Amino acid sequence: MAEIDHVSPLAPARFPDLPEVGGVGMSAAAAGVKYRGRTDVLVCVLDEGTIAAGVFTQSKTASAPVEWCRANIANGRARALVVNSGNANAFTGKRGLAATRETAKQTAKLIGCNQNEVFLASTGVIGEPLDASRITKVLGRGVKRAAPGNWPQAAQAIMTTDTFPKAATARVRLCGKWVTINGIAKGSGMIAPDMATMLAYVFTDAAIPAPVLQEILARSAGKSFNCITVDGDTSTSDTLMAFATGATGNTQDFENADDPRLKQFIKAFDEVVLGLAHQVVRDGEGAEKFVTIDVCGAEDDTAARRIGMSIANSPLVKTAIAGEDANWGRIVMAVGKSGEAANRDRLKIWIGGVRVAVRGERDPEYREASVVPHMKGQNIIVKVDVGTGGKGKSTVWTCDLTERYIQINADYRS
Amino acid sequence: MAEIDHVSPLAPARFPDLPEVGGVGMSAAAAGVKYRGRTDVLVCVLDEGTIAAGVFTQSKTASAPVEWCRANIANGRARALVVNSGNANAFTGKRGLAATRETAKQTAKLIGCNQNEVFLASTGVIGEPLDASRITKVLGRGVKRAAPGNWPQAAQAIMTTDTFPKAATARVRLCGKWVTINGIAKGSGMIAPDMATMLAYVFTDAAIPAPVLQEILARSAGKSFNCITVDGDTSTSDTLMAFATGATGNTQDFENADDPRLKQFIKAFDEVVLGLAHQVVRDGEGAEKFVTIDVCGAEDDTAARRIGMSIANSPLVKTAIAGEDANWGRIVMAVGKSGEAANRDRLKIWIGGVRVAVRGERDPEYREASVVPHMKGQNIIVKVDVGTGGKGKSTVWTCDLTERYIQINADYRS
Repeated sequence: MAEIDHVSPLAPARFPDLPEVGGVGMSAAAAGVKYRGRTDVLVCVLDEGTIAAGVFTQSKTASAPVEWCRANIANGRARALVVNSGNANAFTGKRGLAATRETAKQTAKLIGCNQNEVFLASTGVIGEPLDASRITKVLGRGVKRAAPGNWPQAAQAIMTTDTFPKAATARVRLCGKWVTINGIAKGSGMIAPDMATMLAYVFTDAAIPAPVLQEILARSAGKSFNCITVDGDTSTSDTLMAFATGATGNTQDFENADDPRLKQFIKAFDEVVLGLAHQVVRDGEGAEKFVTIDVCGAEDDTAARRIGMSIANSPLVKTAIAGEDANWGRIVMAVGKSGEAANRDRLKIWIGGVRVAVRGERDPEYREASVVPHMKGQNIIVKVDVGTGGKGKSTVWTCDLTERYIQINADYRS
Repeated sequence: MAEIDHVSPLAPARFPDLPEVGGVGMSAAAAGVKYRGRTDVLVCVLDEGTIAAGVFTQSKTASAPVEWCRANIANGRARALVVNSGNANAFTGKRGLAATRETAKQTAKLIGCNQNEVFLASTGVIGEPLDASRITKVLGRGVKRAAPGNWPQAAQAIMTTDTFPKAATARVRLCGKWVTINGIAKGSGMIAPDMATMLAYVFTDAAIPAPVLQEILARSAGKSFNCITVDGDTSTSDTLMAFATGATGNTQDFENADDPRLKQFIKAFDEVVLGLAHQVVRDGEGAEKFVTIDVCGAEDDTAARRIGMSIANSPLVKTAIAGEDANWGRIVMAVGKSGEAANRDRLKIWIGGVRVAVRGERDPEYREASVVPHMKGQNIIVKVDVGTGGKGKSTVWTCDLTERYIQINADYRS
């Protein structure tokens, strides 16, 4: 792990003030998993009755802790979360699974809960055996020191090559009670060196039944983490979880996520999750520009998202943005290669609000000088109407592709 | 277009000696489409009776010349090929189509053939109107000067940011006669700045019926051009065509490509096409290493190819290779994200013939030092058994991803 000698130019001005969330205590410990002189284990203790929901990587080579979480999330109950950075415990065979089990077992013993109420994540190098004893030896102190205010420490402990800790917060009224929603995340783009992990955790003191929380979380992920990309490389460990402690004691007879009483809560929840997702893009390896891509006129929302991701993952589009070049021909190319329906002769493209292409060719009104100031800025906005006449639309976010991305990833481990 | 101040370190030592192909004449002209002080139009005149076959980009935003070729290839007859570099005539609306029609019309008039026997391609910037008169004004001289020996001039005229001209050749006996197969190609990876084109043309004096030539070409593309990638960006203009003049007068009562008499011919044909495809990878923008990825143990060949392309397109795998780092964890990641079936706990990986991973974890025998010399070389060989127990296998080729790729593509046009 390189020292943080370079904070992303897209980082927020400061770490947000996170209020306490009733029922949630946290601590960070230095276990020496890989890094020296920094914390690398997060221990989070959750009150009895806490409800859990989660979405995990689609990778066919998922890590041992992802398999552990996937097996236990159906119970919908959580009492602890333990995350280590420095080693992904992925592609580590039976020993990897054993390390996961041992960590869960020791944590459950210390807290006095079932093992299936302990959730785990590991982020760092792939294929290196994880020595579970390094983690288990700090668990006792970690559980003892868990306290409500340690959000900055928690966000720091899960970082790998992140250049800043990531958090977001919201307060909202739910059935007459004020509830808090806090989130923390790590990830330097969708990826980190040695393809560590994108991890994000959302905590609320609201009371939400497990199936409803799962529905809220899955929908939220579909509009946030599933709509960001740095380089299209999918981690073996990607994890997004939500914990609802119910400490506020609100009514919780919600049957599903469409209950109108949940509307404001879901809006706030989505804002927290999207805020975390955007921070991951803002810490994309080598990123110098934050790029929003709006797609409309597609056959359906799924097609729109695929077209958006095709643009967002195109190295040629991303390098053009790095070069501050409004090279819309590359956007046409990326629409064309997506495999989704598009009508070339009705395609329209806007950059920074200026229409650059219309009716299958360059807009006759367009002068390149009009978008130069926009391209020189930090926030780039691309809009594409793919012209099928359909109502499908989607927004995705990415960053530019700079020489620093290559430096970071070619030099790692050498 | 930048001057060629840097020839790819992976370029062949010299341009091959191409024998004449009976029935094929060529010339190159300087039309000033975009570049100055170089040729940019190839005119190829084909004898009466020449059979044509072609495969074209899958892009939904294909260029005007690609649409022209696609509409006319079904006739299976060709008398001329006109290619310009410097302008892709893609996303140029009705004017683009008109420019294509005008070029075909003038060529047909000069040669005395039907317009649908004239094939066209354009490669260069997207979205700029193409002034057809620049091309038509050199056609007369181009047709007049077309001669059998001008292969180096032809390969040069179609280059954009290619750092070397690309050609391959083979001689083989077919039904008792010696036949020649020559090919030329351009492409700096699958892509060129502003996402120009990959173009490749194969010429033979053999007599092959049109449906059989189409079958041979499509199969050959499936094992060559469809198995290479530089950055996963698909051009609006990709074109691979074959022309068989029949000048050797061999028997041609072949019913299909499985005719045993065609076996040696197809082998030679495939070698020429694969040779061109490899040269495109060897001229990949910024490439310093040529990478071969063998995948086996997949459910079927299509799954194997998708897994291979997932590895070959992963920026993390490609930057690790650029950094001479045998980072096999990133290969595991790329297998996992491909979406195809893989058995994590039976996955095996070899780098340069050394087994680095087995049974879902690092090979206990593996020492990193044993692959260091291989990683320092120019030819990197990765083999992956994805462990499903299936017989699916595929080989794909790519290059590494270096800082120079970013420089070339961020700086273009600026």
